Amino acid sequence: MSRLALSTAKSISYRNFDRKFSLSSSLLKAYNNRNDLKNAKKVVVKLGSAVITREDQSGIALGRLASIVEQVSELQNSGKQVLMVTSGAVALGRQKVSRELLDKTLRESTQKTITKIEKSTLDKKACAATGQNGLMSLYSSLFSQYGVETAQVLVTKADFQSEHTLKHLQSTLNYLLEAKIVPILNTNDAIGYPPELTKDKEGALNINDNDSLAAKLAAMVESDLLLIMSDVNGVYNCPPSEPDSRLLENFCPSVDKNLVSFGSISNVGTGGMESKIAAAEFALENNCSVIICNGKQQNAILDSLNGKKIGTFFSNSVSSMATVENLASNARNGGRLLQTLSADKRSKIIRDYAQLLLANSRQIYEANTLDIELARKNNLSPVLLSRLSLNEKKLITLADGMQQIAANTNILGKVLKSTQLADELILKQVTVPIGVLLVIFESRPDSLPQIASLCIASGNSLLLKGGSEAFNTNKLLHKLVQDALEQFVPRETISLLNTREEINDLLQLDSKYIDLIIPRGSNQLVQNIQKNSKSIPVLGHAEGICHVFVDKDCDPDTVLKVVRDAKCDYPSACNAMETLLIHKDLVNTQLFESIINLFKSERVKLYAGPSLQKYVTDLPPAKKLNHEYSDLELTIEVADNLESAVDHINKFGSNHTESIITKNDDAAEYFLKNVDSACVFLNTSTRMADGYRFGLGAEVGISTGRLHARGPVGVEGLLTTKWLINGNAHTASDFSTGKKKFIHKVLN
Amino acid sequence: MSRLALSTAKSISYRNFDRKFSLSSSLLKAYNNRNDLKNAKKVVVKLGSAVITREDQSGIALGRLASIVEQVSELQNSGKQVLMVTSGAVALGRQKVSRELLDKTLRESTQKTITKIEKSTLDKKACAATGQNGLMSLYSSLFSQYGVETAQVLVTKADFQSEHTLKHLQSTLNYLLEAKIVPILNTNDAIGYPPELTKDKEGALNINDNDSLAAKLAAMVESDLLLIMSDVNGVYNCPPSEPDSRLLENFCPSVDKNLVSFGSISNVGTGGMESKIAAAEFALENNCSVIICNGKQQNAILDSLNGKKIGTFFSNSVSSMATVENLASNARNGGRLLQTLSADKRSKIIRDYAQLLLANSRQIYEANTLDIELARKNNLSPVLLSRLSLNEKKLITLADGMQQIAANTNILGKVLKSTQLADELILKQVTVPIGVLLVIFESRPDSLPQIASLCIASGNSLLLKGGSEAFNTNKLLHKLVQDALEQFVPRETISLLNTREEINDLLQLDSKYIDLIIPRGSNQLVQNIQKNSKSIPVLGHAEGICHVFVDKDCDPDTVLKVVRDAKCDYPSACNAMETLLIHKDLVNTQLFESIINLFKSERVKLYAGPSLQKYVTDLPPAKKLNHEYSDLELTIEVADNLESAVDHINKFGSNHTESIITKNDDAAEYFLKNVDSACVFLNTSTRMADGYRFGLGAEVGISTGRLHARGPVGVEGLLTTKWLINGNAHTASDFSTGKKKFIHKVLN
Repeated sequence: MSRLALSTAKSISYRNFDRKFSLSSSLLKAYNNRNDLKNAKKVVVKLGSAVITREDQSGIALGRLASIVEQVSELQNSGKQVLMVTSGAVALGRQKVSRELLDKTLRESTQKTITKIEKSTLDKKACAATGQNGLMSLYSSLFSQYGVETAQVLVTKADFQSEHTLKHLQSTLNYLLEAKIVPILNTNDAIGYPPELTKDKEGALNINDNDSLAAKLAAMVESDLLLIMSDVNGVYNCPPSEPDSRLLENFCPSVDKNLVSFGSISNVGTGGMESKIAAAEFALENNCSVIICNGKQQNAILDSLNGKKIGTFFSNSVSSMATVENLASNARNGGRLLQTLSADKRSKIIRDYAQLLLANSRQIYEANTLDIELARKNNLSPVLLSRLSLNEKKLITLADGMQQIAANTNILGKVLKSTQLADELILKQVTVPIGVLLVIFESRPDSLPQIASLCIASGNSLLLKGGSEAFNTNKLLHKLVQDALEQFVPRETISLLNTREEINDLLQLDSKYIDLIIPRGSNQLVQNIQKNSKSIPVLGHAEGICHVFVDKDCDPDTVLKVVRDAKCDYPSACNAMETLLIHKDLVNTQLFESIINLFKSERVKLYAGPSLQKYVTDLPPAKKLNHEYSDLELTIEVADNLESAVDHINKFGSNHTESIITKNDDAAEYFLKNVDSACVFLNTSTRMADGYRFGLGAEVGISTGRLHARGPVGVEGLLTTKWLINGNAHTASDFSTGKKKFIHKVLN
Repeated sequence: MSRLALSTAKSISYRNFDRKFSLSSSLLKAYNNRNDLKNAKKVVVKLGSAVITREDQSGIALGRLASIVEQVSELQNSGKQVLMVTSGAVALGRQKVSRELLDKTLRESTQKTITKIEKSTLDKKACAATGQNGLMSLYSSLFSQYGVETAQVLVTKADFQSEHTLKHLQSTLNYLLEAKIVPILNTNDAIGYPPELTKDKEGALNINDNDSLAAKLAAMVESDLLLIMSDVNGVYNCPPSEPDSRLLENFCPSVDKNLVSFGSISNVGTGGMESKIAAAEFALENNCSVIICNGKQQNAILDSLNGKKIGTFFSNSVSSMATVENLASNARNGGRLLQTLSADKRSKIIRDYAQLLLANSRQIYEANTLDIELARKNNLSPVLLSRLSLNEKKLITLADGMQQIAANTNILGKVLKSTQLADELILKQVTVPIGVLLVIFESRPDSLPQIASLCIASGNSLLLKGGSEAFNTNKLLHKLVQDALEQFVPRETISLLNTREEINDLLQLDSKYIDLIIPRGSNQLVQNIQKNSKSIPVLGHAEGICHVFVDKDCDPDTVLKVVRDAKCDYPSACNAMETLLIHKDLVNTQLFESIINLFKSERVKLYAGPSLQKYVTDLPPAKKLNHEYSDLELTIEVADNLESAVDHINKFGSNHTESIITKNDDAAEYFLKNVDSACVFLNTSTRMADGYRFGLGAEVGISTGRLHARGPVGVEGLLTTKWLINGNAHTASDFSTGKKKFIHKVLN
């Protein structure tokens, strides 16, 4: 098992250096997905001079260089083959030469203040020769820390124009790679060639910088991945100075090339971004994946190979960012049409959709069965399986609900406020849709028609992302809503997203594309969305830490009935009680015993808060006072009085729903007024906090935020307003000069 | 000018190693501000083993080490003196020893699959001895790249317990530092000492790890700055796993020590966070500033010295983060009281405040004069000076406005919706304040009483930040509102912030502390706040790119009157017109010429959009179509028809305010319906978009967001709602089991 036992050359022959490559090696394919990069066997790493040299361009950035050596060694030692194309010799040479010159000048000069030799006075070729030496010795000593051998290969443009030298070069490089030696390539800048030997070929990728050199070499050694590292972060859609500028994570040359506007970005680096993209394109055509990234970023090489989103990844698959931008923009346009439709037409879409669901029930069950079978194989829990499954009863209930939504579409353009500002000057505040919504929901596929109907009723366009376990069902349900939509508006008014990656891309967009995100699902989902949304508002609640406070002056039957329902009716719901606060005077009374026994009989695990621990010793202590169990578990804590109960709730609660059980009117009033939550109840279970129970119709979600909508949100939460003025040549100066006067007469 | 010309020792003598330090060198003070760290002359850098070794704890993280050498060299070459305390010898030794053992094992064994020697089988002392050698030679060769000399100093705990060895050590280190040689210290782990020589002194900082060693050395060499670098980011307020956990940017031991709860964090690193804090405290007492930071962060050493917010900075000044948390938390508590006050009491506070303003007018003018004098010296523009200045007329107008606000405080607890859900079960949606507001305003000090009055009227507590140029005026105006508040609620219900740093700290807080930020000022201010707010919603508008569209069927007089007002009445206002769209059919008509002449006579600079350029050649081209001039400048563009005008506005506008001038009812309707902006006007100047003109009373701001409030926002924008239920032992299961039925009867 000698490390030098070389494998035979790949069967696909290497011919020459232009586009023919893509034909000759058509069996190999560049990776379409960053996750596959970990499988890359041969990697070419191109280091721009900005990566290797210090900011003042004199001397080596030793830390970065050593880190690159460390990463390359790790790849090499894990069995991969790495070829490096490096700049930096000139910079190192400049440092050495100028130090020498400085010493010389100081020796010869009486003027002792000279501390620097001007860069421009140094000969570049001489610096290159001087620096090459030092650079290679530095590489060699750094790599030796990891037991990695290196080889120096200097090439010129002319070497790539002769079949003879080319073949030699190829065989040398392949031998080195197979021998587990890292070839370190650079252009032989000390040598100048006559122009006829180095002139550009037409229509081919010419070697005019290290980017094109690296691309040619990557093709030559049949590399799987080329990393082009410089001091730019990657390819941007437009110059980074523009407000809409965004780093492109993926770049598919055939699609994205026209989207990128080269501008101020192209003055960075040797060949600029255009030449980098040309080099990347060439490598990609020769079946080598490419990442253009910032070599100053820590761990960029290993992270790239681990599939992390670093720089711009070149592949032949259309980038998902372009996809989601497109989806969002189509939704915006569709929504603008949808909101101009009459209420009747919007109702008709919803009714037709309900009809289509019933008419296609057989196909829906078939799609649903596919999902369920797969979910069973994946050992989905019975609870989730039952949520996933659709049946006739569910479908009929769903269609009935949709009819109710369809009956309530006359909600746009409602005049909320109308004021006569002055003669012939009328102001109206009218309801309008918010715009484009992104709704993310989990498991239950019947959510899709509900959410879609709510959006159609309110004139909002929609991007939907359902749980992957309902893939087939959602796909069909989505097709049917598009069928219903297209009689009046484009199908793309409601789009279905397929991957998590698309969601992440959407979260990076600004509110020009999407106006509101509504995540409906687990705490984790909601928190994740809230954390990652760059600038789009998120409506919802992450936590539901709901409290019930049992006052000293209370009806025992009410207490037992309400606390049982609050905890046990549906423990995983966000409006279920998580902490029971009991007035100090009740501890160890008959009622207290009954409460404990009730929960024991319901198999609720009880935990004692710090104050209760002073009275009761047989309950395990609660780990923290703001815990959401979402299960048959409960913290019980003692409150010294009403005020301290309210303080406890405001401190440890999540501002969702709290309830007091009392017969004392003053206590009730104090609680309702001072508890700072979206829902505050008297003698009622926290479980009543729900859009349907509140009579809001279908529920969009429950919000614990204080802006826009708070608590259970109905279809009204999907509306905003705009202000309209109908005037007759009125101007601000008419009023500021006193020519006209405001009357501000309320008309409605 | 020999590099070895040593300066004499500092006059303040070094005595021994405990708290006496702080007495002996009381003339030196540790820096209170990160910005002063750039002045540090002597720096001690302590590198934890996690910084230097690779994640698998075998071998050196060469990239990080080289980067540290690079940074230390830069400091050293810029004339500073650096002393290093380094770990890492054991890890490097472990790598070398295990490689040797592996070779040996392979030679002796027939079993070829052994690839790793278990860490636990290696002797730590032997590894230390082996590694020390390699580590120092690595340091030496890396530093030599920068022409920096190093010296190896190995110490033991016992060395610190004898006056004799101590003095020797101190003089050696001082000599090295003055000679511009970097002393690299480590504990002599190869040597074991008897316990009696190394036992801990009581009540003193004992050397049990490299953190305490570094602190002692920092004191010994009278260092200005100690960097304790490990793999934790700094000191957290609580274990990083907790949801509220936050890195403390500043740490003042006398104040913050009790705030920090040590928990799961203390198992990271050798001595854990508690010992790091003890070491930092010791150094600080000996007048050496300290930063505890993550050494894996790029450029951490240089960034620390450049005053960047890296890790936790130890100083004797109370951290501004603690200050703002405190301010916000006091505001929250004050607000909870404020909202329970009757409307009459809230009115009384506002009226008393107005009264106090008039009664203290002389002092206010004096404070204002101070500000104006300073502003004149700073060459503030005449416009800003006039905004800054207060006079009798302004004060009386202000007090009048406050009386109006005081007359309208009966806005809390209003029932917006009331529904009989079932027998004895009533739901109400009532208005409540949002909570704690942060309002940031510029220059005009009369904003302060207005904003404060609006907040008192709506029951919100308030953090205020005014322009620094109005410092003295704002301070007094704020004192007076606190005087008015304290009859019913704590003064801290409204607090004034003094520094920009405090704003940045506030933006990092989560919405537990602050519910809404309202920036009132320049675009730049608003954009900056929007970008930097971590999770608190921001109400406002960054841009006002307002359009007027002149339809083909329009009244010429209305056109001329409205466009003049829209552009010229107050060009820097956000509701001023920035783009005039003209119907194609009007180009080069009489009206068109009149418009051009009008703007010329008003000295408005005109720019032609791409379509207009086809018709007109004497106007310079507009640079972009979404430009906000905020000045007497205007883009004019041609729209082919009504629809394309609407498309143009929706594409390039900022959704603020747009107006159409037309006599055609259908065109008007289409425009009002399809333009997607907060305000859409017919035959009226865009300047009419304003809370006062809309009759909303005092204006909080204008919002271009679509949630909560859109367009001009009055005091209603400072309210939210909560849902109250009054029940009688109602539970969710009563209804789901059919025992009770919902009636959902609307009561109001």
